[in-house]
Amino acid sequence: MELQNELQNLETAYQESEDQLIEDWKSLLRFKSISTNPGNNTDCINCAEWLLDKITSMKFKGELIETVGKPIVFGEYIVSPTAPTALFYGHYDVQPPEPLNEWKSGAFEPELRDGKMYARGASDNKGQVTFVLGALNTLIKNNSLKVNVKVLIEGEEESGSKGLSSIADKLKEKFKADLIFVSDTSMVPSGAPSITMGLRGLAALSVTLKAYPNDLHSGLYGGALKNPITELARIVSTLHESCGEDAGKVAIKGFYDDLIPHSVEEQKLSQTGKTSDQEFKDSLGAEPTGGEQKFSTAERIGFRPTVEVNGFTGGYGGPGGKTIIPAEATTKLSMRLGTGQDPARILKLVKNHLLSHAPKGMKMEFDSESAGGGAIRVNLNSPWLRAAEKAHSILSKEEIAYRWEGGSIPVIEKIIKVSGAEPVFVGFGKAEDNWHAPNESLALDRFKRGFLFSGLFFAGLVAN
Amino acid sequence: MELQNELQNLETAYQESEDQLIEDWKSLLRFKSISTNPGNNTDCINCAEWLLDKITSMKFKGELIETVGKPIVFGEYIVSPTAPTALFYGHYDVQPPEPLNEWKSGAFEPELRDGKMYARGASDNKGQVTFVLGALNTLIKNNSLKVNVKVLIEGEEESGSKGLSSIADKLKEKFKADLIFVSDTSMVPSGAPSITMGLRGLAALSVTLKAYPNDLHSGLYGGALKNPITELARIVSTLHESCGEDAGKVAIKGFYDDLIPHSVEEQKLSQTGKTSDQEFKDSLGAEPTGGEQKFSTAERIGFRPTVEVNGFTGGYGGPGGKTIIPAEATTKLSMRLGTGQDPARILKLVKNHLLSHAPKGMKMEFDSESAGGGAIRVNLNSPWLRAAEKAHSILSKEEIAYRWEGGSIPVIEKIIKVSGAEPVFVGFGKAEDNWHAPNESLALDRFKRGFLFSGLFFAGLVAN
Repeated sequence: MELQNELQNLETAYQESEDQLIEDWKSLLRFKSISTNPGNNTDCINCAEWLLDKITSMKFKGELIETVGKPIVFGEYIVSPTAPTALFYGHYDVQPPEPLNEWKSGAFEPELRDGKMYARGASDNKGQVTFVLGALNTLIKNNSLKVNVKVLIEGEEESGSKGLSSIADKLKEKFKADLIFVSDTSMVPSGAPSITMGLRGLAALSVTLKAYPNDLHSGLYGGALKNPITELARIVSTLHESCGEDAGKVAIKGFYDDLIPHSVEEQKLSQTGKTSDQEFKDSLGAEPTGGEQKFSTAERIGFRPTVEVNGFTGGYGGPGGKTIIPAEATTKLSMRLGTGQDPARILKLVKNHLLSHAPKGMKMEFDSESAGGGAIRVNLNSPWLRAAEKAHSILSKEEIAYRWEGGSIPVIEKIIKVSGAEPVFVGFGKAEDNWHAPNESLALDRFKRGFLFSGLFFAGLVAN
Repeated sequence: MELQNELQNLETAYQESEDQLIEDWKSLLRFKSISTNPGNNTDCINCAEWLLDKITSMKFKGELIETVGKPIVFGEYIVSPTAPTALFYGHYDVQPPEPLNEWKSGAFEPELRDGKMYARGASDNKGQVTFVLGALNTLIKNNSLKVNVKVLIEGEEESGSKGLSSIADKLKEKFKADLIFVSDTSMVPSGAPSITMGLRGLAALSVTLKAYPNDLHSGLYGGALKNPITELARIVSTLHESCGEDAGKVAIKGFYDDLIPHSVEEQKLSQTGKTSDQEFKDSLGAEPTGGEQKFSTAERIGFRPTVEVNGFTGGYGGPGGKTIIPAEATTKLSMRLGTGQDPARILKLVKNHLLSHAPKGMKMEFDSESAGGGAIRVNLNSPWLRAAEKAHSILSKEEIAYRWEGGSIPVIEKIIKVSGAEPVFVGFGKAEDNWHAPNESLALDRFKRGFLFSGLFFAGLVAN
């Protein structure tokens, strides 16, 4: 039981270095590395430089890769040219902290309180980056690493990964790897060991129906003119089947054409990591009654593509009423994609559908089009998945929860393609961590668990 | 030709007092008397007090009548207890000015530009109130008034006239009159002398579909949960028949039950004041292709009831995108009513329709409910209608355009009932005035024409 011994070493190392790990974590959290805000550009660069120092001190050959956006922190630790190579992906940027008045301590003044670290990024993704680097540092010091490790920490995950996406194709050689490890996901609410098996792809756009040069008096014109809200509402209501056994299915022609269905094995496995209907009700006050009624909740979230209306704006929205026929109406749509669906093609199908339903005499305009990235599904037979399962099993006797999460990290699909690597996603986030919300946190016990898991995982990687 | 001489006097008086009239107009326009916004309550009161001073200075016995809402400006000028009494109705409140960035000059900073006065209320209704009061002032000074005049200027016409409606029954004696004159309507685009023969009734409400305590991540939940925008859009699309010969017809059960159809004579007369399809296209860039296809455009606007969507708000409406399932969605609806339709009953039918289409698991809430008032149709044989025709004929040789306008002044129906008066509606608004929209204006030449008409009309009123 070589790995069992490794656990002892990691436990000892954690005890000895916990204070330093927490200091590193706090240092990282103090950078206001908000990638969506141009005013925080310097904070992002300072954060990247701090991380470069960190990995260099760990004996990585490190560099900052300049992009059209924020710099990428990159490093290599090569043990042997013939050994497998693991690429670790993380991000150092964070979501904006607003609304600030809801934070109990400063969003960029990390505070360890009641066993939890509070700060923006505490969990997503600075906390998870810190424990992975900490574990790698221990393995390097203990001479326990049998594979090459590359580190890729980008600074625009929260804002579309523009820099990394646009430069990735040129860095094929640099990013080449056998597996890519990502710890930017969550575990099941029970805290059982979790492995994320898939992420959906993403495409999005905004559509505006322009009818009149300005809002019109609903009395003087009402009855004679078409209403752009009524028309756009009608169009929105054509996006899904509304009745029969297909109720909830996307009703756009060709939408499901390229979808590669999930296997029976995946379907079964997805039940291990599912959120129960009661858990839904407890946290949201609502049961999961939406979407395609033919599929289970876990399948609908994990495998099935969606068309979601993210916003609808038209006419008067203030207090009271205003008797107008609005000049225009806008809706924002995003599509979560299943395996095989090409974001650009889906975007085209959606636009064609919208255009074919546009009323005569109104102008339909598209905006904010984004073909983010395709879906990712982890190969059930991946040897690297076996390594993650093994690391989990050493830390816990509980059954592993396999999760097809439904969310998207669009750039990962790109990196998988470019690097040739198979993905492994193991995260330690929980709903209580408040990702993207005020009072983000990560419990110290899960931080430690992430450290131990990462150590065991990387130590357990060997040639297959 | 007594009235012909009166025209000379009025012309002279206008020349002499134009500067003062414009000053008064501007003073009135500077008040931010937005009745829908509680934050503008003091502006409304200040505006009412200014008007009270104005009519008092004209020798009216004036007062402010307190209501549950904004105060009513009321005044009496009695020439003889046996003479007929004319009640002039106007309103000093205005629609909200939003969107502010589309105004070329401040909404409450009146500016005379290229022969037009620009400001919120320039036409609706402060401009028209100003010229009527100006004309009455002239007649009083010239001793040309042969009837008693009552002035009633309320402050909540744009928000449902709650104050006036609720107090009207108690003021039966005070409001008693033989005719009620209203200049809160429009003329035909050609500028031909116009008389408004009917107004539609009005009811309105706001409906919110509440689904979740807050916006949710469209990746983590999308596919499993219903979307309140999608559901509300679907509900909106059930409000009208969408195909067949009934396309455009309101699809709410019982909606047309009590509607009293218009007569053949009214239908014919309505063609004199109709807006041609080309005129629609020229002014709006759109043809009048909405509504019930069985009826002519003039009938659809003048006589037929509607359900209009005035606003729709839900989820994210800012720049770019945001991948959320929105917590809730709201839409604002208003119904224009035909003769015979009871606003309260229509409101109930609409609510029943909405509730019957509400999705399971979401909460439907109503707000801003208003059963404004029923439709009004002017008696084709009214002697006061003859007086209006005469005043028009002195000013212009053109044929009179008779208009069933489609708009609503809901409280007028109530005042007609309470006062026992027959209505006369002559307005000088035009589509180009942008009522309820940015850059509202009134051309100075129409302001003058309104002044002359009002003078001739009131001077021409005699016992019948």
